[in-house]
Amino acid sequence: MSDPKWVYGFDEVDEAQAAIGGDWDDVRGLLGGKGANLGDMTRLGIPVPPGFTITTRACLAYLNAGEQFPGDSWAQVEAALARVEAAAGKEFGDRKDPLLVSCRSGAKFSMPGMMDTVLNIGLNDQVAEGMIELTGDARFVYDSYRRLIQMFGSVVLGLDDEPFEEVLAAARKAEGVDNDGALSVAALLDVIEQFKALAPAFPSAPMEQLKLATEAVFKSWNGKRAIDYRNAAGIDHGLGTAVNIQTMVFGNMGEGSATGVAMSRNATTGENKIEGDFLFNAQGEDVVAGTRPTLHMEDMAEQMADLYGEFAAIADRLEKHYANMQDMEFTIERGKLWLLQTRDGKRTAQAAVRIAADMADDGLITKKDAVMRIHPDQVDFFLHPQFSTQSKASGAKLAEGLNVSPGAAVGVVAFTADLAEQWAKQEGRKVIMVRPETKPDDVHGMLAAEGILTSKGGRTSHAALVARQFGRPAVVGVAELEIDLQARTMTVGGATIAEGDWISIDGTSGDVYAGQLETVIPDISDPWLMKVLGWADELRTLGVWANADYPVDAERARRYGAEGIGLARTEHMFFETERLPIVQQMITTTDPAVRQEALDKLLPYQRGDFAGLFRAMDGLPVIIRLIDPPLHEFLPEHGALLRGIGDARVALAGSDDPAEQGELSAGIAADEAMLARVEALHEANPMLGTRGVRLGIMIPELTRMQVRAIFEAACEAAKDGVDVHPEVMIPLTSHVNELKRQRDVLEAEAKKVMEEQGIDIDYKFGTMIEIPRAALTADEVAEYAEFFSFGTNDLTQTTYGISRDDAESGFLMEYLQQGILEENPFASIDRNGVGKLMGIAVAGGRSTKPDLEIGICGEHGGDPKSIALCHELKLNYVSCSPFRVPIARLAAAQAAVRAGDA
Amino acid sequence: MSDPKWVYGFDEVDEAQAAIGGDWDDVRGLLGGKGANLGDMTRLGIPVPPGFTITTRACLAYLNAGEQFPGDSWAQVEAALARVEAAAGKEFGDRKDPLLVSCRSGAKFSMPGMMDTVLNIGLNDQVAEGMIELTGDARFVYDSYRRLIQMFGSVVLGLDDEPFEEVLAAARKAEGVDNDGALSVAALLDVIEQFKALAPAFPSAPMEQLKLATEAVFKSWNGKRAIDYRNAAGIDHGLGTAVNIQTMVFGNMGEGSATGVAMSRNATTGENKIEGDFLFNAQGEDVVAGTRPTLHMEDMAEQMADLYGEFAAIADRLEKHYANMQDMEFTIERGKLWLLQTRDGKRTAQAAVRIAADMADDGLITKKDAVMRIHPDQVDFFLHPQFSTQSKASGAKLAEGLNVSPGAAVGVVAFTADLAEQWAKQEGRKVIMVRPETKPDDVHGMLAAEGILTSKGGRTSHAALVARQFGRPAVVGVAELEIDLQARTMTVGGATIAEGDWISIDGTSGDVYAGQLETVIPDISDPWLMKVLGWADELRTLGVWANADYPVDAERARRYGAEGIGLARTEHMFFETERLPIVQQMITTTDPAVRQEALDKLLPYQRGDFAGLFRAMDGLPVIIRLIDPPLHEFLPEHGALLRGIGDARVALAGSDDPAEQGELSAGIAADEAMLARVEALHEANPMLGTRGVRLGIMIPELTRMQVRAIFEAACEAAKDGVDVHPEVMIPLTSHVNELKRQRDVLEAEAKKVMEEQGIDIDYKFGTMIEIPRAALTADEVAEYAEFFSFGTNDLTQTTYGISRDDAESGFLMEYLQQGILEENPFASIDRNGVGKLMGIAVAGGRSTKPDLEIGICGEHGGDPKSIALCHELKLNYVSCSPFRVPIARLAAAQAAVRAGDA
Repeated sequence: MSDPKWVYGFDEVDEAQAAIGGDWDDVRGLLGGKGANLGDMTRLGIPVPPGFTITTRACLAYLNAGEQFPGDSWAQVEAALARVEAAAGKEFGDRKDPLLVSCRSGAKFSMPGMMDTVLNIGLNDQVAEGMIELTGDARFVYDSYRRLIQMFGSVVLGLDDEPFEEVLAAARKAEGVDNDGALSVAALLDVIEQFKALAPAFPSAPMEQLKLATEAVFKSWNGKRAIDYRNAAGIDHGLGTAVNIQTMVFGNMGEGSATGVAMSRNATTGENKIEGDFLFNAQGEDVVAGTRPTLHMEDMAEQMADLYGEFAAIADRLEKHYANMQDMEFTIERGKLWLLQTRDGKRTAQAAVRIAADMADDGLITKKDAVMRIHPDQVDFFLHPQFSTQSKASGAKLAEGLNVSPGAAVGVVAFTADLAEQWAKQEGRKVIMVRPETKPDDVHGMLAAEGILTSKGGRTSHAALVARQFGRPAVVGVAELEIDLQARTMTVGGATIAEGDWISIDGTSGDVYAGQLETVIPDISDPWLMKVLGWADELRTLGVWANADYPVDAERARRYGAEGIGLARTEHMFFETERLPIVQQMITTTDPAVRQEALDKLLPYQRGDFAGLFRAMDGLPVIIRLIDPPLHEFLPEHGALLRGIGDARVALAGSDDPAEQGELSAGIAADEAMLARVEALHEANPMLGTRGVRLGIMIPELTRMQVRAIFEAACEAAKDGVDVHPEVMIPLTSHVNELKRQRDVLEAEAKKVMEEQGIDIDYKFGTMIEIPRAALTADEVAEYAEFFSFGTNDLTQTTYGISRDDAESGFLMEYLQQGILEENPFASIDRNGVGKLMGIAVAGGRSTKPDLEIGICGEHGGDPKSIALCHELKLNYVSCSPFRVPIARLAAAQAAVRAGDA
Repeated sequence: MSDPKWVYGFDEVDEAQAAIGGDWDDVRGLLGGKGANLGDMTRLGIPVPPGFTITTRACLAYLNAGEQFPGDSWAQVEAALARVEAAAGKEFGDRKDPLLVSCRSGAKFSMPGMMDTVLNIGLNDQVAEGMIELTGDARFVYDSYRRLIQMFGSVVLGLDDEPFEEVLAAARKAEGVDNDGALSVAALLDVIEQFKALAPAFPSAPMEQLKLATEAVFKSWNGKRAIDYRNAAGIDHGLGTAVNIQTMVFGNMGEGSATGVAMSRNATTGENKIEGDFLFNAQGEDVVAGTRPTLHMEDMAEQMADLYGEFAAIADRLEKHYANMQDMEFTIERGKLWLLQTRDGKRTAQAAVRIAADMADDGLITKKDAVMRIHPDQVDFFLHPQFSTQSKASGAKLAEGLNVSPGAAVGVVAFTADLAEQWAKQEGRKVIMVRPETKPDDVHGMLAAEGILTSKGGRTSHAALVARQFGRPAVVGVAELEIDLQARTMTVGGATIAEGDWISIDGTSGDVYAGQLETVIPDISDPWLMKVLGWADELRTLGVWANADYPVDAERARRYGAEGIGLARTEHMFFETERLPIVQQMITTTDPAVRQEALDKLLPYQRGDFAGLFRAMDGLPVIIRLIDPPLHEFLPEHGALLRGIGDARVALAGSDDPAEQGELSAGIAADEAMLARVEALHEANPMLGTRGVRLGIMIPELTRMQVRAIFEAACEAAKDGVDVHPEVMIPLTSHVNELKRQRDVLEAEAKKVMEEQGIDIDYKFGTMIEIPRAALTADEVAEYAEFFSFGTNDLTQTTYGISRDDAESGFLMEYLQQGILEENPFASIDRNGVGKLMGIAVAGGRSTKPDLEIGICGEHGGDPKSIALCHELKLNYVSCSPFRVPIARLAAAQAAVRAGDA
């Protein structure tokens, strides 16, 4: 059996596709995204410098074999190189007319900056001489040569880059020029000699250069920064990277040469207009690194109209071909345009939404495609904080930079990624990470930070790309920002800001402010978002309701598209200042008459609360949950009472003033009385104690008052023409008999109110499913419920045996850090445990009542992964915070599509 | 279609059996136990006074029809009566030679005293005159007549019995006699006139008497005391009662007449010897009521040898026929023996066990039958407290009575059933109920009491029967006990004891003591019990293990038949006085070196604990659970610390003595330091907090020390030739990764110890299943466990969302009282909820490891209902407290038989 094919020429993409079974995604897996697209572009007839791809399989085989090239793979590389030489009419290592190549990584999923690139491979002293003879351009050749040594030293040999930069800085200083392109040939020759001294292991043999560079790419797959990036982005560690060996073309070959990076649409706003940066007489890194001020594509349109036209046509063709916005690298070598790479472009949430909507409107993709292309987090972004107009007007503006990733961020300045991470994760501080520019090593700090600020770099800089991808507000390229990493300060706009000082950055406008600006949550008015969400609504089968305790929340929820209130918590209303004393009286008395009096006082408050909700949700269902928390939550804290009594006793012992003594004694007596009541109500485990329906059974007059308030409010609103649909929810049921008893009492009260008021209200009674036993016996529970609502917060606590408050500041965080749990079960529903229980409950409940209304309230209702589970479980709706409603609409649609239901 | 057959003559039992399909149990359902047995005895040729049975169906139809006789049922009664008249050659209501009948209830299950009986039906003034003419015995006739009026008044008319008794007492006093049988004819005539005045509704028409008496029996099925009894005994309320109408025979017809009640074996000890009481010239109630001192069957054997022989032969025949010990009523009318009833006899636990064992040994029943005849509670009885020999020797003995129900009981005297119930249930006091004699109305008090003491009554008295059935120690018939219900005192042996004073009664010996005697748990050495448990062991498939923390407990468990230790709690050992300071040091330090030092000190203690267990269980498995409770349980209580600090501060404020001040300040500082640590460890819900495996992951050095101690102990014991099988149990797993991590660390330590010691130990690692998620994901968990052990206490807490400590003094008791829950889920496993989850766990675990060892530890492991569930779920073993081991052995066998597996 012959060896597998480890190497494919760019012109062999059809063969690769046939070999792998035809699926383009698998081709990308084999050749990497970059290699597949270079092949694809070649197939399309787009000008791509010839080359070939060493497959990801070769990479994996190399790594698995203890860093040995598998089988005849290196021979295949040599053969492929020979084909390229033949096509170019040049020879690799030839001293007269040499072929130079680049060596780049290309994994299946784009990982910007994570993998390593070496250009100009094939140069050495002799080859350089030959090239100068051929081109007559010694400056270009030596510039290329010093770049090769520098890149090879840094990437392949793992040398520190700084000494190389110091050599260049010294040379620039000596010649009084401000960029490397202006260095003289003599200076460059001197630089090359110094570089060789810095990198004595640099091999002069071209094939040795190529082999070592290829191995360096392979090895970098398992480098720390690549692993970190994959962990952060959720990319499979088992994919491997391909290596692309490609004929060099030179944007630095003097006049008529250029190199650039461009997006087919605006990556920030989504506007349908080519956007990008380029430089004359430069190589690719010069554009990305942000070390020279770049020109814009508009400049190219003016100064190289034909070539721009050619590029625009290619961009349009590629965009149509991939049905997506393209991020392209190009080089112009002495007037000839070459495409070096194309890939789907990273973009802001705003741009993603607009591009998806526009493309669907233009028929380039379907509406379903458009819905699937938006990540739910990107919708979240529209609801991200922004600075209020007021706060911006009065804020101390320091500078303006490039608005590369929108949103407002406020935090303390941290000048290194490690410090940013430490402050954010260990001390819970909000941090803005500030760097001259960012590198892949900085990603962990960027992820931990609220926002990113750099003094260098452009829209396609590393900082901009990463910030956009992970939704961190970012301002880059603030030229006037001087950062002193030694002194740990930065100066800008005349102000000096120390590490740890507060700043505010506006990634939407590019503004940078001193201090903490006030942020506001904007409304979702983006027309493209509205359009995509409308399409999502057509696709989804899951309803989206909201949790709202107050009319103002209900109104916002409705504006955001909520189709009902899935949870109104009645006890939040009890904590309001004027009500709490009445609630405490109700709890602390042992006299039924006094208790009833307190309840009578609370009734009008609750009635008012509920009436407001009904009016806001006119025509839609409103689920009101009866009192849930244990009663001691409404009383003073035990330790605080004890400490207060201790203090008063000490004061009393030291007091000579009879009046003061009397006052202190009275205070102590009152506190002791409260203490006695608090201790009587004390529970070892209140989460598993007297709360929810258990309270309703122990103190039926309390829930009866609440039901009376609900129905009086409903009748009152109905009389005003409001279409009311109250649903009364009984919390914490664990045995059907609890529900039966409470429901009997409460439904009788409801009927009494409706009789008194002479109005019939469309109502339901139901229960939360938040205790494992209720889920396990859902068939029985459903006998007395018209609806179920999963309380997955509590259901997770009881199913997992985890007290959330205790665990999230204790062992649970440790578990997540140690990787014992992959995910916080309070963020996404635990499929294997809690999800299984939910499935049992749905099956049980519907076996008794096939049309049982089942939803979920609580935080999971706004989490896309949990929403997908709810769709799979055939729930009727998810209910989440008003701010999550748009996200839930999108996530529900995507769940329906993924499950094949839309 | 003709009416069903509502009435069956005693001689028509074959017809009834054919009509109902042949099953004898169904015949008992139709005719009641008494009616079926009267028919059966008639069929056997045993002398039974002729009569007939009105079926339970007639009763139910009567009650359902609003208390109307259904269809032609009354006509069927009249026809059956006519057949009896024809057979007897007498006519009902005839003034010359009248037939008198009794009317008795007879439900499927014997309910002694619960249903009502009327004798001598058919007597009125005219009939009495005729009977006197016929018998020449006016005293007998008037005695029978006054009995009829009294019983009819009480039972049928619902009149208070006391006025009747007062009339009789006045008559006895007037004539200076001490029993009613000695009253003169004139006195009886006067009594009859006074009785008629007390019961003006007494009908003189015999058929009217019969009809009203029959209806009274029917109605009494729904009387409060019948319902209470059925609730207590778990008898179906839908069965109904039959009515037996039977020719009267008279034990009160002068010399040569007698009546009695006898058991075919001794109901207290089980000895195979007829035992019973009888009275010459009396009717049945006289024997049961205990108002006259009864004679014993030994006296009958002496004084009426032939009749005794006839009776003994019948008893033997009946016992063989029913394959059970018989409880028989008989009457001798002028030298002719009649059997009035036979039924399976009630017996003490000791008697039940001995009778079952003897009958199986004699081949009367199978060994399986013998096992099935013992109720697990009866085994429990053998482990009931008894008074220590010492305490009895030094106790203040007041009197001696009949030892009718064994066991020792200590409590405060309560003279009424209501008070006994109130004190026991509402105030949690231990009560001895003391009555002159007991009646069905008293059952609720007897059930609530620790024991029963009466001044009247014999071995077959109501008090004796009920006490025996429900396993309450009882002493009855203490003649010298004088009870003053008005003064609420009793005097005995020269002492006066007030209600609320402590007494101790010994139901095994019949002794009564003043004050509280010390009780001890005896060993189970009863040879018959050993025999039956041995048979149970042959039948059961479920293993029986024990929970034991100390060698002494393990030894007891082994003696009681335990086949392993299912749970040794390591933390109990931490609470011992000399260890607790070390444990606290280990917890409160933040210095790893100090912690390790403390752990090093604890290691030898734990090693010693474990070595003792291994030695005690030589050859059997010992499951040791690693530390489970949250660490703050080992520290002082928060409120107590705060209060102590407050007190010290007040003292400090008032102190003038510098030395004292210094001491106080130092104390406050120490307490404040401890307080800070307690607060740092505080958890809102410790049940769901940092405990079990979570502790092991947070402080691996702690569990590592425990595992080292286990394996060092195992090696040490093994070197001494002990056959050790340690199983290390990790508590509170909720996610497989927790188990995996801990096991990796701990198994490595175990291997290290075995290497150090040069010994290979047969060990297992496993986990508790006590969190719903562990049960739901048991397939995953089983990957890293060789055994599961259900911790159903915690599993019930989390599945039900109930904190046991809080609930059992709060809403859970309320739920049980209100009937929201039928059973305390901490007493018997909740089948529908927790049981379902266990089923999921067993299926999941065995799907991964078909031979997975699965058991249950915790209190449910000793509960017969829960044991039956464990058998059904195919667990390998149950583990329970050593004292429950014998019960579990029996219950496991019964579960196997009931499930058809043995």
